[in-house]
Amino acid sequence: MKVLSESLLDAIRKTDNFVLATHINPDGDALGSLLGLAGILESMGKQVFRYLEQPVSPLYDFLPDSDLVETDMEKLAGFIRQAGDNILGISLDCGDRQRLGQNGPELLRIRPFLVIDHHKGNNGFGDLSWIASERSSTGEMIFDLAVALGLTISEKSAVALFAAIVTDTGSFRYESTSAHTFDVARQLVELGVRPDHISRSIYDNFSVERLQLMQMVLATMEMHHDGRIAVISVTREMLDHTGCTLADTENFINLPRAVISVEVAVFLKETGEGMVSVSMRAKDSCDVANIASRFGGGGHRNAAGFRASPVTLDEVGDRLLSVIRQELGH
Amino acid sequence: MKVLSESLLDAIRKTDNFVLATHINPDGDALGSLLGLAGILESMGKQVFRYLEQPVSPLYDFLPDSDLVETDMEKLAGFIRQAGDNILGISLDCGDRQRLGQNGPELLRIRPFLVIDHHKGNNGFGDLSWIASERSSTGEMIFDLAVALGLTISEKSAVALFAAIVTDTGSFRYESTSAHTFDVARQLVELGVRPDHISRSIYDNFSVERLQLMQMVLATMEMHHDGRIAVISVTREMLDHTGCTLADTENFINLPRAVISVEVAVFLKETGEGMVSVSMRAKDSCDVANIASRFGGGGHRNAAGFRASPVTLDEVGDRLLSVIRQELGH
Repeated sequence: MKVLSESLLDAIRKTDNFVLATHINPDGDALGSLLGLAGILESMGKQVFRYLEQPVSPLYDFLPDSDLVETDMEKLAGFIRQAGDNILGISLDCGDRQRLGQNGPELLRIRPFLVIDHHKGNNGFGDLSWIASERSSTGEMIFDLAVALGLTISEKSAVALFAAIVTDTGSFRYESTSAHTFDVARQLVELGVRPDHISRSIYDNFSVERLQLMQMVLATMEMHHDGRIAVISVTREMLDHTGCTLADTENFINLPRAVISVEVAVFLKETGEGMVSVSMRAKDSCDVANIASRFGGGGHRNAAGFRASPVTLDEVGDRLLSVIRQELGH
Repeated sequence: MKVLSESLLDAIRKTDNFVLATHINPDGDALGSLLGLAGILESMGKQVFRYLEQPVSPLYDFLPDSDLVETDMEKLAGFIRQAGDNILGISLDCGDRQRLGQNGPELLRIRPFLVIDHHKGNNGFGDLSWIASERSSTGEMIFDLAVALGLTISEKSAVALFAAIVTDTGSFRYESTSAHTFDVARQLVELGVRPDHISRSIYDNFSVERLQLMQMVLATMEMHHDGRIAVISVTREMLDHTGCTLADTENFINLPRAVISVEVAVFLKETGEGMVSVSMRAKDSCDVANIASRFGGGGHRNAAGFRASPVTLDEVGDRLLSVIRQELGH
């Protein structure tokens, strides 16, 4: 459903125990909306289990209450047991059930299960869903949710939601940035958010190793189709050499995207032996969600991705290039 | 004066001819506020002379009506003559009279002369001034001016003002970004501004060659003093190889500066045979203007530089490192 419904609000109001989850390799919007909603629910006197498959990446440990995240499935089982029937599972910013990670099936056993997301390709899963693809970020939706619940957002939650919006709009630069996005940003600043502090935490947080990795990834850049397609890649070897993880490659794709001639930027990531994760960013001329769906993935018109295995970086790259070439035409 | 006064509004209302000027080497806020105000005045039926010392740089020629800018002093003299006593000169975004450029004295002969600016150090010049240092940008002030005049801003002027705000806040990231800034941004979007289009014009303007140069410069990065000092360099050979100029290296120093441990970032640039230009960026712990002055240069506490010759990159680097090490201490 596209509109925040009374039944969703009622489900939240009448429940006392919540398990919040998000997609694997969570970005700023995933973590910010999860932590922001957790704070909002706690301000209502609810018990909240902040579930993540992995601990919060150091990139995002500036987010308030990021240390309250739990990764222990036994603890989760205990929480669920104690809650009995008085429980609600909520998935945030997660486009489909597969992206909930290896413990997704376990999470989805929590009933009822709510889905709150802004990804276009999300067809809804769980028992009740609120998909607002016109919103810049799930963080922006959580702000609306708090307003609909008649709550005042704490400064901590405001910081988390602002960080969510900033990361998913590239600092108010992407197409999804609307008048409503700016209106929410204004209100979050009025709640005590310091935009400069958050932007510094998000953007001026490079490790030397991450900058070295960026240099190595940039060195892989190849241009195709008269400079209209740019491809960069990262291998396990580069990650091992620099001691970085895939989380450190966040935003690298914006570098080839910033080239004037580039209409589609592609980032090929070797996630394991024979396993490749692909991110794409497009300008107006191409719908990469459409391309990603042909490879079993999804996303937005301007930002999408998929996974492939068993395969090499080159194999995925070649197959993808021929599809993008077709899509772009001459 | 800090507040937009009735006398300033009256001066604008009762005058029919305007000369608008800004500082030399105009940035997005200088040009955006000038072009935005010009459109607003013309919507009131006024005659406007958009004066610049140099034509608009290709970096900013996406701004609507940037082609209406005039650089011809004789044309200006004709406009002033025809206007007689019914004229107002306005300086926008210019911190002091010197920065009006070589024709500043000529411009300041226009009486009355108004100064609209947000720079902290501006003590006011001309006959009447409105200095709002709490505002992110002069563009944000021009929006307030239009509101005070009771006008609806055209889409063209809205684009110019939005671009002004984006460039002077680093896309809503600098300390000056306030709730009011976001409120103005919201209203400009409601007037038809497309944030993604403007951001793309401002930020996604890399050439492939510039990105290659960035990769090469990043590959030179060396860390010193327990990661507190980072040094990058560019040689003539790299410029020749990529076909770039030194102007293409703008902002590269912000990459090592973004490393968490780095307190001083140094950029060594080979400007010619045996000639080196040095830029430094510091965080709070070090005054690089002080260091630069020891090498015959200058600047601000957080951003300074100097030139040296005849010398090699390594020689300058070594001498500078020992001075910075002393300055930083243990």
